[in-house]
Amino acid sequence: MSEVKDITSRDKDFASWYTDVVKKAGLVDYSSVKGSMIICPYGYAIWEQMQKILDEKFKETGHENVQMPMFIPESLLNIEKDHVEGFAPEAAWVTYGGSEKLEERLCVRPTSEVLFCDYYKKIIRSYRDLPKLYNQWCTIVRWEKTTRPFLRSREILWQEGHTMHATEEDAINETLRMLHIYEDFQRNTLAIPVIVGKKTEKEKFAGAKATYSLEAMMYDGVALQNGTSHYFGQGFAQAFGIQYLDQNNELKTPYQTSWGVSTRMIGALIMVHGDDRGLVLPPNIAPIKAVIIPIGKDEAVIEATNKVTNELKEAGITYRVDDSNKTPGFKFAEAEVKGYPVRIEIGKRDLENHQVTVVRRDTLEKIKYDVLDIAQSLHELFPVIQQNLYDQALARRNQMIYEANDYDEFKNIALNQPGFIKANWCGDEACEKKIKDDFGMKSRCLIDDEEIHTNCVVCGKKAKYRLYFGRQY
Amino acid sequence: MSEVKDITSRDKDFASWYTDVVKKAGLVDYSSVKGSMIICPYGYAIWEQMQKILDEKFKETGHENVQMPMFIPESLLNIEKDHVEGFAPEAAWVTYGGSEKLEERLCVRPTSEVLFCDYYKKIIRSYRDLPKLYNQWCTIVRWEKTTRPFLRSREILWQEGHTMHATEEDAINETLRMLHIYEDFQRNTLAIPVIVGKKTEKEKFAGAKATYSLEAMMYDGVALQNGTSHYFGQGFAQAFGIQYLDQNNELKTPYQTSWGVSTRMIGALIMVHGDDRGLVLPPNIAPIKAVIIPIGKDEAVIEATNKVTNELKEAGITYRVDDSNKTPGFKFAEAEVKGYPVRIEIGKRDLENHQVTVVRRDTLEKIKYDVLDIAQSLHELFPVIQQNLYDQALARRNQMIYEANDYDEFKNIALNQPGFIKANWCGDEACEKKIKDDFGMKSRCLIDDEEIHTNCVVCGKKAKYRLYFGRQY
Repeated sequence: MSEVKDITSRDKDFASWYTDVVKKAGLVDYSSVKGSMIICPYGYAIWEQMQKILDEKFKETGHENVQMPMFIPESLLNIEKDHVEGFAPEAAWVTYGGSEKLEERLCVRPTSEVLFCDYYKKIIRSYRDLPKLYNQWCTIVRWEKTTRPFLRSREILWQEGHTMHATEEDAINETLRMLHIYEDFQRNTLAIPVIVGKKTEKEKFAGAKATYSLEAMMYDGVALQNGTSHYFGQGFAQAFGIQYLDQNNELKTPYQTSWGVSTRMIGALIMVHGDDRGLVLPPNIAPIKAVIIPIGKDEAVIEATNKVTNELKEAGITYRVDDSNKTPGFKFAEAEVKGYPVRIEIGKRDLENHQVTVVRRDTLEKIKYDVLDIAQSLHELFPVIQQNLYDQALARRNQMIYEANDYDEFKNIALNQPGFIKANWCGDEACEKKIKDDFGMKSRCLIDDEEIHTNCVVCGKKAKYRLYFGRQY
Repeated sequence: MSEVKDITSRDKDFASWYTDVVKKAGLVDYSSVKGSMIICPYGYAIWEQMQKILDEKFKETGHENVQMPMFIPESLLNIEKDHVEGFAPEAAWVTYGGSEKLEERLCVRPTSEVLFCDYYKKIIRSYRDLPKLYNQWCTIVRWEKTTRPFLRSREILWQEGHTMHATEEDAINETLRMLHIYEDFQRNTLAIPVIVGKKTEKEKFAGAKATYSLEAMMYDGVALQNGTSHYFGQGFAQAFGIQYLDQNNELKTPYQTSWGVSTRMIGALIMVHGDDRGLVLPPNIAPIKAVIIPIGKDEAVIEATNKVTNELKEAGITYRVDDSNKTPGFKFAEAEVKGYPVRIEIGKRDLENHQVTVVRRDTLEKIKYDVLDIAQSLHELFPVIQQNLYDQALARRNQMIYEANDYDEFKNIALNQPGFIKANWCGDEACEKKIKDDFGMKSRCLIDDEEIHTNCVVCGKKAKYRLYFGRQY
């Protein structure tokens, strides 16, 4: 219990609350390698679930996994100008192999566009070679100064899709298709409502023509960019000299995309659903859906525990049994910090009525279920929990989205309310920058589907766009 | 066809044959990053199959996956003396983060013993914390001078298990348990007969007390060490100061193991089963078990193709359909170079008898099957192919195992016959080294189960051990 009691209240100090939860739920631990974390079994199991579900979607849509080198020679990184400017300042450089100084230093991949382009140049010859739909699961490195588990780390586990297409239309469709796969995954599996939209020129990926982003709002009103899908146009292809012969035997330059999500999504899960008792995992992503806690050592309890575990196993519901010597109170608290969607308490008194007590992690509500129906009852309960977590997160997020029509209004909200601000914008980078400089709020993404009635919230000139603004992790 | 025709004969030039097969089967490609290869979709799919099957076995036996940092500060690598001597000479060193020179250089992990020990020191306090059964899937780096796809590469995809136990007995049992999981996997899934035994002191892992190895023999008689399981005793634990309180509240030092296999196993698959037509994959590891080749565009052919694909899909037999515009001859050759266990030719004439032609990749034998029974027939055929590949490999290997009773005999075999030589050995490292210096043959592993009748094959003194010797990849 003591461990659990040590969780800081999230309303008092959100940053400490976050650190307490990741640590006490057993998701990560600190290593003596500065800036690098250890992903513990429970944290890694969540990542494996994410990988499994997404990988299936990628393969269903025709993508294939490959593995590129992890090192990028400096000259290769330098080929695309915007790209190298974006990534070289935070690269880790290998300069020695054994005791020999390398002729050319190598950076540990911060992302793999140039490696894929270098390969595509070699293997794309004809329209018959297109599209190329490759994905890679790997670790990337970015030399961050300040780090936080899952959110900003020197080593990041992620996937990066890199595709090449014959036409602009195909490439744009791919960019949006993958964006929607991410959106669907985050809404329906992670129960995280996301705002999906295009980044401004200033905020787009180094080397991209358009970047689409999934913006989630954390409990404290701060944004987390929870995945991106980029349309590259022909920029990299031209820089790398990638060309193919089309049906008319004419040389053409292909169109490219890339898209990625990372272990950052675990950070989002924590900060969207977690509470003062710890982690809260939506059933669709939880590696362990139920923890079974037998109370006492009565024969009836042991028998019922066996029965329930057998039922769950047969029904394909993942579970663990906590039959350790700890007190029930300790076990309950531990089940809560771990965020298992339900705990099943099996006690003598309930069993007299052929019942067990199921405690929902999301509401802490206690429900009595018939032992015989336990698997079926859970199958019906999980979607209810899943939906409730989504609805709760959506309601909370919507409460923290504000609208500002002029600079005073913007300022008033920005200084007093956490959350996102919707505002009109003329399209001038100077106005976007002023909001960042004044309030530390970057533009999140463009809003497509709303008409623009008023003027730019900064300069007062005619507005062309509507934007979300928000502070970010 | 031209591509396939370009495969060098394996009896003429085995090294070129190998390179041709890995390239033309689409397993790997060369990158412009020296010493690093690209694993192409088909090669990576084989690795995913390996991962899936092994990961399930690891989890069944209570192991959990984690992710450690990929960087090791030099001071951490230096803690265990033998270990640093073994690995520092082939480490890749990161010396700059962005534009800043690092205070301490970091090596990219060549293996992760020290990272796990550093973590175990922190989390192991009591006998209740033991055993710790962790595994990690990751990429490691060894700065090799000369590289060959899958066999010797600067970047290696592998898994490394690292476990801690309360007693020596538990740790030795774990070492052997994992060795047997590997052995079973290689025999029954990869159809590779392996010799399993203990390494000599000279050949054991840097820092281990005992190393057990799985030694496979390639088609050319050369050995491939296809996995290892190490018993560490308390060496690392003492160097790192890892201690726990036992049941009597006394401080004890735990016992450790580590074990690993890598993408090297793909190299073994190629060199054990492949032939002059290309790759030959055992059904139990093949990502695609059957390729379906419709011949012609008759309606009956199209109908039967749909029927067969539906049958295979329902039966859970992975397949691909080659309905491209290439000629049947080209498709057959391509199916052979890819090593799909069977190809299914669907032609008009066969269909008149409600039949299709199945061609076994292992024997090239053609079999007529009734369309209606195709899935069932394949379910029966695959184990036969699997067994045949194993038997073939075993027979070939056994033919290339020789016995030498004195140095002249040893010399005569070593200079004239590829393969392994069984010989008696006094236990003196000088004798072991002489064989390596004279013939380039290292000791593979100790032979447990045979009595020792004669004297040391080198010095003629009384023999204590029997050993396999062999050249290696």
